[in-house]
Amino acid sequence: MAKNIKPRKDDYNQWYIDVIKAAQLADYSPVKGCMVIRPEGYAIWEAIQRDLDRRFKETGHVNAYFPLLIPTSFLAKEAEHVEGFAMECAVVTHSRLEKSDKPGVLKPAAPLEEPLVIRPTSETMFGHMYAQWIQSYRDLPLLINQWCNVMRWEMRTRLFLRTAEFLWQEGHTAHETAEEAEAETRRMLGVYADFAEQVLAIPVVKGRKTDSEKFPGADVTYCIEALMQDGKALQAGTSHNLGQNFSKAFDIKFLGRDQKQQHVWTTSWGLSTRMIGATIMAHGDDEGLVLPPKVAPTVAAIVPIFKSPEERAKVRAFIDRIVTALVGHDAVAAAANRAKGDDVESYFFDRLTHQRIAVDWRDTRPGDKQYFWEQRGVPFRLEVGPRDVDAGAFVFKERLDRGKSTVQIGEVCAPWLRAKLDQMHAALFDRAKKFRDENTRDAATYDQMKEILQKQGGFVRAWFTPSRENETRIKDQTKATVRCIPFDQPGGRGKDIFTGQESDTQVLFAVAY
Amino acid sequence: MAKNIKPRKDDYNQWYIDVIKAAQLADYSPVKGCMVIRPEGYAIWEAIQRDLDRRFKETGHVNAYFPLLIPTSFLAKEAEHVEGFAMECAVVTHSRLEKSDKPGVLKPAAPLEEPLVIRPTSETMFGHMYAQWIQSYRDLPLLINQWCNVMRWEMRTRLFLRTAEFLWQEGHTAHETAEEAEAETRRMLGVYADFAEQVLAIPVVKGRKTDSEKFPGADVTYCIEALMQDGKALQAGTSHNLGQNFSKAFDIKFLGRDQKQQHVWTTSWGLSTRMIGATIMAHGDDEGLVLPPKVAPTVAAIVPIFKSPEERAKVRAFIDRIVTALVGHDAVAAAANRAKGDDVESYFFDRLTHQRIAVDWRDTRPGDKQYFWEQRGVPFRLEVGPRDVDAGAFVFKERLDRGKSTVQIGEVCAPWLRAKLDQMHAALFDRAKKFRDENTRDAATYDQMKEILQKQGGFVRAWFTPSRENETRIKDQTKATVRCIPFDQPGGRGKDIFTGQESDTQVLFAVAY
Repeated sequence: MAKNIKPRKDDYNQWYIDVIKAAQLADYSPVKGCMVIRPEGYAIWEAIQRDLDRRFKETGHVNAYFPLLIPTSFLAKEAEHVEGFAMECAVVTHSRLEKSDKPGVLKPAAPLEEPLVIRPTSETMFGHMYAQWIQSYRDLPLLINQWCNVMRWEMRTRLFLRTAEFLWQEGHTAHETAEEAEAETRRMLGVYADFAEQVLAIPVVKGRKTDSEKFPGADVTYCIEALMQDGKALQAGTSHNLGQNFSKAFDIKFLGRDQKQQHVWTTSWGLSTRMIGATIMAHGDDEGLVLPPKVAPTVAAIVPIFKSPEERAKVRAFIDRIVTALVGHDAVAAAANRAKGDDVESYFFDRLTHQRIAVDWRDTRPGDKQYFWEQRGVPFRLEVGPRDVDAGAFVFKERLDRGKSTVQIGEVCAPWLRAKLDQMHAALFDRAKKFRDENTRDAATYDQMKEILQKQGGFVRAWFTPSRENETRIKDQTKATVRCIPFDQPGGRGKDIFTGQESDTQVLFAVAY
Repeated sequence: MAKNIKPRKDDYNQWYIDVIKAAQLADYSPVKGCMVIRPEGYAIWEAIQRDLDRRFKETGHVNAYFPLLIPTSFLAKEAEHVEGFAMECAVVTHSRLEKSDKPGVLKPAAPLEEPLVIRPTSETMFGHMYAQWIQSYRDLPLLINQWCNVMRWEMRTRLFLRTAEFLWQEGHTAHETAEEAEAETRRMLGVYADFAEQVLAIPVVKGRKTDSEKFPGADVTYCIEALMQDGKALQAGTSHNLGQNFSKAFDIKFLGRDQKQQHVWTTSWGLSTRMIGATIMAHGDDEGLVLPPKVAPTVAAIVPIFKSPEERAKVRAFIDRIVTALVGHDAVAAAANRAKGDDVESYFFDRLTHQRIAVDWRDTRPGDKQYFWEQRGVPFRLEVGPRDVDAGAFVFKERLDRGKSTVQIGEVCAPWLRAKLDQMHAALFDRAKKFRDENTRDAATYDQMKEILQKQGGFVRAWFTPSRENETRIKDQTKATVRCIPFDQPGGRGKDIFTGQESDTQVLFAVAY
C-alpha cells in the first residue's frame, strides 16, 4: 500500500489531496483560492481540450476570444444573472501601482472610472458583441465557443473542484427560433455526455436542473451528473437554454424572414477543469491515480532492471526493440524529450494526441520507479530485466486491477497497445457504471431516503415535484439536492417523497460536490 | 479596387484597420484597450498555437497553467522588473460587488488584504513555484510553457499590436548552469525564427537587444525583428536569459552535483497575438488580407456560378467531384459545418490542422463572393460555371498576385492543392524577403541615417556602440531605436554613426511598432 496516500475508506478527502500530490497534478498557489495546474495535470486538460474541440468543430462551432474584463454595468443588466454572479467576483479598480512610503510595498494608483470584474462567465460580453454582429436571419445561427480562464471568488476551495480561478470552455450561440435554441442546448449536452463516457470513461446521467439549481438567467439548464466513489454526485457539464433573457437584456435583434425585427434565442454551455477532479475521483484507487487511456499523457512506462553495465546494455537493446515496435523507427530517432538527457526518455506514441511512451532510466530503484508510474495512473508498465531478454519477453503490468502477465516481444506493435488501451477504457467504464448502478437506490419515503443518504450515499431515485421551498428544506435536513430530473423517466405517477402528494416527476437526489 | 479598404499608400494605419474589419478578424470591445478576437482571427491564432506547441514539445517542453493573479509584493522582488511592469497593470482590490444607492449600479465591496495584479508576465509566479519544486540537480532542467492571457494597461491601443489584454505563450525554464540557460535562450529564439519564416512566411533578423531595450530583469534579451510594408519594424518574439536574477529574488536553489546549494539559471521567452498583426502587415495588399497558407483557416473557397435550377444542379455535381477529389468521400459525407445549412459548406481539408475548403452557396452575387473570400485572404478561389463544367475545368484564382488560370478536373487531388499551397508560401516569403532586403540600407553617417528614415524608412544598418544615453537622443530626434544587434556581424570595425568613434558593433535601426 502506498505510504504517501491515505486509503479512501479512512479519509476520502485526504486521499484526494494525496493522489493529486503524488501524481503532481496541481498545487495551491500563493494567491488564495487559485491553483497551479502542473504539467502532469495540464496534459490531461490538453487531452480533454483536443477531443472536445474536435467535437465542437464537427458540430459547426468556431472558437473566438472575448475580453477578460467585464464592465460592472453589464452584470446588472440581466436580473437573475446579477444575483448569481456579481456577488462573488474579483473587482479591478485601478490601472497602475505606485511605490508607497514602505519600502518594497506597492499601492494601487490611477482609479478606473467604472470598476471592471474578471469574467465569472461571459454571457454578458457575448451578448453585447452579438448585438453588433447580428443583423439578419442570414447571420444566424451564430455558433461560437471560447477556451479561457474565469474567476469566481470562493472561500472554501478544493483543487480542480472548486477554485477561484479555473479553466473552461464556454459556448455561446444565437438562433432564429426557440426550437433551434432548444435543439442546440440538447445537442451540446449530448456532446458532453458522449465525451464523458467515451473519453473519460465516466458514466453520466443526462437530465434537467430544477429551477432552484439552474443557471442564473437561463430558462432551462440541462446537466450531466456523475457519481464519485465516496457516494457524492458531481455536476460534470451544463447546457443552458437562455431563451430571450439575454437577447432582451442586450438588445440582440435580427430582421426575420418575415421582415420583422425580433430578438434572437441564445444558449450557453460549459465544461471546466473540474472534469479532472471528476476523473481522479471516479477512477483512482488506494495506490493513486488511474487515468482513462484516452487522456493519459503517458500510456505506457518501461522500467528496466539491471545490475551491471553489461546487463544495462542488454536490456537497453531489448527495450529499443519494444519501443521501435510501438512507435516506429523514425519516432525513436526523434525522441520527444532529449533535453532531459538519459533520465526519462519519452517517445510520441500518437503524434496527434501527443500521448507518449516513457522509458525510465533514472538512477533509482526499479521498485521506486514502479510506484512512480503507478501513482501517476499510467495505464501500463513494462518491466524488462536480463532474464526477460533471454526469454524474449517482458512483464506487462496493468494499472487497473493491478493485473500482471508475460508478453512475448513478437506480439508487440502499435495496434496491440491500442487494443490494450481500448480494453482498459471499457473495463474502467464498466467498473464505474457498475458502481454507479449499485449506488443508485429507489426510495419510497423520505425516511427511507434519509437512511440511504446517511448509511450508503449515492443517488436516490424518488418521485418529487420540484419546488424551491421543499428543496431548501430537504437540503437543510439531509445536505442532499436534486441533482437532476433525468431525461429517462419511467412515466406514470408516484407519491412525492416529501409532500406525499401525487407527482409525475422522478428525480435523482444526492449529496453533491 | 476594394471600396471598403483604404489603399496602403494613402493611409497605412487606416488600411490596417480596414483590412481587419473587412476580414472580420477582431473588434474593439466595450472595455477600453481590450479586443475581441473574432472567429476568423482566432483561427489564425489556433494555427499558430498548434504549430508552435508542437515545436515546443519536440524540444522537450511541457505545458502548465499558473494563476492569473499575482501578489503585488511579488512584483517588487526583482528591482528592474518592478520598474518595467508594476506601473501599468490592472489591480484587483475587492472580491465582491454590492448594490449601491443608484439602481443598476454595483459598487466594489470586501476589500482584499493585499491588492493583486493581473499578470503582465509570469516570471515572478513561476519563480515562486520553482523554488518549491526544485531541490536537486535531478529536478533540472525544468522546461515549462504556458498559453494564457496577460494584461498591460495601455493607453494608445491598436488591434493585435498593442492592446491591454493579449494572448501569448510564455516559456519559463530553470537550468543547472549558465551555459545551459544560454543555450536554451538561443534554442528558443531559433524556434521562433524558424516558425516565423516557415509558417508565417515572414523573414526575420535574429539578434540581441541593447541594454535599454531588453526585458526588465533579464541579463540578455534576444529577439526576432521583422519589417512591415510601411517600413516600420516589428519585434516578433523575444527570448530572455534571466541569469540568476529571478532565482536570487525568489530563492530558487538546488543541491548541485558538487553537493553544494546554488541558485538555478533561468530563461523566459514569449510570442503573442501580435504575430497576427505582423502577418497582416507583412503580406496584406490593397484588396485586403493575404494569409500564409499554413495558417489560413480556409485554404480554398469554391464559388459556383449559375442562373437556373438546372445550372445549379449541374454546377453542384461538378463541385462535388472537385471536393471529393480534394478531401475524400468520407470527409464530404461528414461536412464540417452542417449546422449552417446550405449557405457556406465547409469541409476539412486537413483534419490535423482543421484547415478547410469552403463552398459558397449563399444567395448573393458571385462577384460579391469573390470579394468576400479575397478580402479574407483565402489562398485560392475556384470559380465554376456551367460552361466550365462542359469543358471539364474551372477557373483557379490565386490570392497572391491575383493570378488566374484554367485547371482541368483530372489534375485535382489533395497533393495538387498541397503543392499549390507550398508554392504560394515560397512566393510569399520571397516577396517579403525581397522587400526586406531592398529596405535594409547602410548608413555611414547620422545625417545619412536621418535621410533614409525620413524618406524611405526600413532598416538602417550602421556601426554603433549601444549606450542608453545615445539611444535616447537618437530616438528623440528620429523616432528610431536599435531594433537589434544582429547575430550576423560583418566583423571588423567602423565609425560609430552617432559619436564618430570607432565601434566593433553593427546594429539595425528602425522606427518600430
